[in-house]
This record gives sequence, structure tokens and C-alpha cells, in this order.
Amino acid sequence: MSIKLSKISTLPPDDLTKKKHEAKTIEMVIKIGELQHKLYAEGKQSLLVILQGMDASGKDGTVKTVFADCNPTGIDTYAFKKPTDEEFAHDFLWRVHHKAPLKGNIMIFNRSHYEDILIQRVHKWITEEKAEKRMKAINAFEELLEFDNNTKVLKFYMHISQERQQEKLQEHIDDPAKNWKHKAADWDENDHWDEYMRCYEYAINESKIPWSIAPSDKRWYRNYFIAKKVLETLEAMNPQLPILDKSNGGS
Amino acid sequence: MSIKLSKISTLPPDDLTKKKHEAKTIEMVIKIGELQHKLYAEGKQSLLVILQGMDASGKDGTVKTVFADCNPTGIDTYAFKKPTDEEFAHDFLWRVHHKAPLKGNIMIFNRSHYEDILIQRVHKWITEEKAEKRMKAINAFEELLEFDNNTKVLKFYMHISQERQQEKLQEHIDDPAKNWKHKAADWDENDHWDEYMRCYEYAINESKIPWSIAPSDKRWYRNYFIAKKVLETLEAMNPQLPILDKSNGGS
Repeated sequence: MSIKLSKISTLPPDDLTKKKHEAKTIEMVIKIGELQHKLYAEGKQSLLVILQGMDASGKDGTVKTVFADCNPTGIDTYAFKKPTDEEFAHDFLWRVHHKAPLKGNIMIFNRSHYEDILIQRVHKWITEEKAEKRMKAINAFEELLEFDNNTKVLKFYMHISQERQQEKLQEHIDDPAKNWKHKAADWDENDHWDEYMRCYEYAINESKIPWSIAPSDKRWYRNYFIAKKVLETLEAMNPQLPILDKSNGGS
Repeated sequence: MSIKLSKISTLPPDDLTKKKHEAKTIEMVIKIGELQHKLYAEGKQSLLVILQGMDASGKDGTVKTVFADCNPTGIDTYAFKKPTDEEFAHDFLWRVHHKAPLKGNIMIFNRSHYEDILIQRVHKWITEEKAEKRMKAINAFEELLEFDNNTKVLKFYMHISQERQQEKLQEHIDDPAKNWKHKAADWDENDHWDEYMRCYEYAINESKIPWSIAPSDKRWYRNYFIAKKVLETLEAMNPQLPILDKSNGGS
């Protein structure tokens, strides 16, 4: 089944209310914290959360809200930027693989290896053939994490409309508290919107491990949607606190 | 085409003489040093040499002889041992990927990711199903290095007979200068010889990037064989010293 992003709404379903769902999100965030504690204590499985989306789609805000109740000891987040010289001297997955989560941990990628078939493809820094080879390598890499390290890979495309993105980028200029987020280059990337959508659709449709499309025009619904999926995933992983067998002296 | 190790000789071809081929090896070792210098200066391609073989098959000696004339700045070697706790908390390729060579460099693996489908499989620490999944992951990993980082992957199986191995292990006991190499566990692994051969054959036959089988009962021929293949590979990579274009001031 092939998805078409322009056919998917960036808004919450009509019948949902902000107030009620913000309260539900808070409840879920607490449960996520409890399950993260168990995951860490158990030390047998790990969770990799990948957040991808256009600029201003809410990646930072999602991390801050959804994982607010996790113990920093067992969770880490990494924002992938332009590769360093050392990273450029290796294959594109080299720096990414090194950041894969330890057993017992949650790792959140703010951007990821998908940039290597998004921004690099949009700007034609790589050939279409190389993009296709990289997609196959990504599938093999994500499957490796799952089968060899009990890592659950959870990928979100933060689906925002171009109009809403423009509003948020303008906020970065208008609101002094958000000025630090302003980058002129974000506006330039906007000229490539349609090409980005084509490349995102390719990545989503060719991935063996499925994506969740998070409608992200409204912060409250984006947080609710992602918290719900993260919670369901952790519940299905069902981490267990190890209990000592006291019958043999606890060894 | 499927290979059967028991059908392949561990000895040099009859018509080769030790003295003459030792001299040839020395010539090749010098040329390897010259090409390694160019590879480093060029900074566009890299070479990964993987040495696998039973204990005492000559991995250390090969590194010492064949790469004797390389500049340590552009070459590195890594001997994979039992994984650390941190390594065990990741997939089996995690620690290996991190050691992949930079563009411009040669990396030599003394043992490698293949141990994860050799010793682990022989001792049944992993299921046959997991060994097969790992083999597929290895193929994807090695291909990634080749297509995304211009890394040539050169793999040697150091083919030694069980009789010759016993002799060399005995030398580790009898010769005080070699006592440091003695490990009682090496003798225990010997009980699993046939199973090791089965797992090596699987790895060699299922690999997409081909192996070279280096007859290793005689040190001089093993060195000659491996130096020849390394030299041919570097010649085919054909690294070029970058030359300044002085017409525009050398920029």
C-alpha cells in the first residue's frame, strides 16, 4: 500500500477537543515514564524513536513533551546535523549506527539517516541510484537493530502543511524567545517543498519497518498522537522488573 | 559455485620455491607501502582487509609482514576479542561498523564480524536462524561500505591443516618466546574443528563479496599469497597523488 501525503490531513480529526486531549496526553506521558523505568531495569530491549519532518514541524517540542517524565539515565536524544569531516569520510550509516540504543535504553533521533535520502536527494548531491541503494541499506540496518538487539524502531513523519510551516517560521522571527530558532536557510528549503514531499513519500513507501504519519499542524494533537503510539509500543514491549529469586540466596 | 575446504590444499603449489618467493614478497611489500602512501594522499577510497582463520593460522604474522612498509598514519589494525558489556548491549555489527576505515585509510581486521557466525554458531550460543539473518546483515553491511564509502573489502580465509595447527600450538608451549601466545582454550576449540569448517564454508559460500582462500601451512607462501592479492587490489584501486593546478594560484 502506497501513501500519498497530500491525501492525508495535517489537522486533528474534527470531533477531538484540545482540552480533553491535552489532559489525556499528560496521563500518557506519566505512563511512558513508568514503562521507561521498567525498560531500563529489565535491560533486555531498547526503543529507537525517529522523528522526521520539515523545519518547524515540531521535533524539539515533541521530545520535550512526550518524554518529559523519563529518567535521563535511560534515555538519550541526538540531533543529527551536517556531518563532520570525520563522518563524511565514512558511509552515511556510520555515525547513525554508533548512536543506536543500548539494551534497556530509549534513543530519540531528531532527524536521522533519512536525511541522507531527503536533503541530499532533493538537492541532487546524490544520484537517484545511490538514493535507492541507501534505502535498501536503511532497511537492512533497521532490521538488524530489531532482530539482533531487540530494538523496536518507531518512526514518525511529522506531517505539517506548508501554510502552517510558514506561520511557525514567521514566529521564529517575530517572537524574541524563538529568535534562536530562526535560520534563513529554512526559508530557502521551502522552495523545494514538493520535491521534499516526493522524497518523503519514497522513504515511507519503501521502508520495511512502517512509519506513523503524525498530523502536526496543532501542537496538542501532534503530542497526543505521538504519546499514544509511544505508549502503545512500550506496552506491547511489556518490560518486566527483574525480581530476585530469594530461594537460592538471591543469586 | 560452492567451495569445500577439505578439497583445497593448505600447502604451496609444488613448483614454487621458498627462497625465490620470499624475495618476491619483499618486493611486493615495498610496492604496497608506496600505494598506501598514494591512497592516503588521495583520500577518496579505503581498503578493509579481513583476516579470519583458526587459531595459529598466522593472522598476526601476516599483518606484521605484509604491511611492514606502510606508514602507520594511514593504516590501522584492530583485533576483535570477546565483546565488552557495552558491545554486548548492541547488535553484533555495532562495534565493527565503528571501526570501518576512513577514506584514504587501510584498516585490517584481525578476526571480525564473522566470529559472530563462527564461534557463536559452533557453540550454539545463537540459533541457526539467527546465523542466517546475521549472514544477510553482513552482506548488506559490506556492500554499504563499498557503494557508499568507496571501501574495497578484501577477505582472507587463512587455510591451515589441523596437523599443522597442532604443531604451531605446540610451539607456543615449547618456545619461551612464544609462550605469551599460549591459551589452553585454543586446544579446546580444536575439538570443534569439523563444525568450524562447516561454518566457515557457509560464511564463504553465502558471502556476496568473495573470499580469498590463503594456503597457510607455510608462512612464506601465506605471506606471498596475501601480499600478492593486496598489491593487485591496491593497483586496481589506482590511487592518484593530487596535483595542484598552479594556473589558478594553486587553490
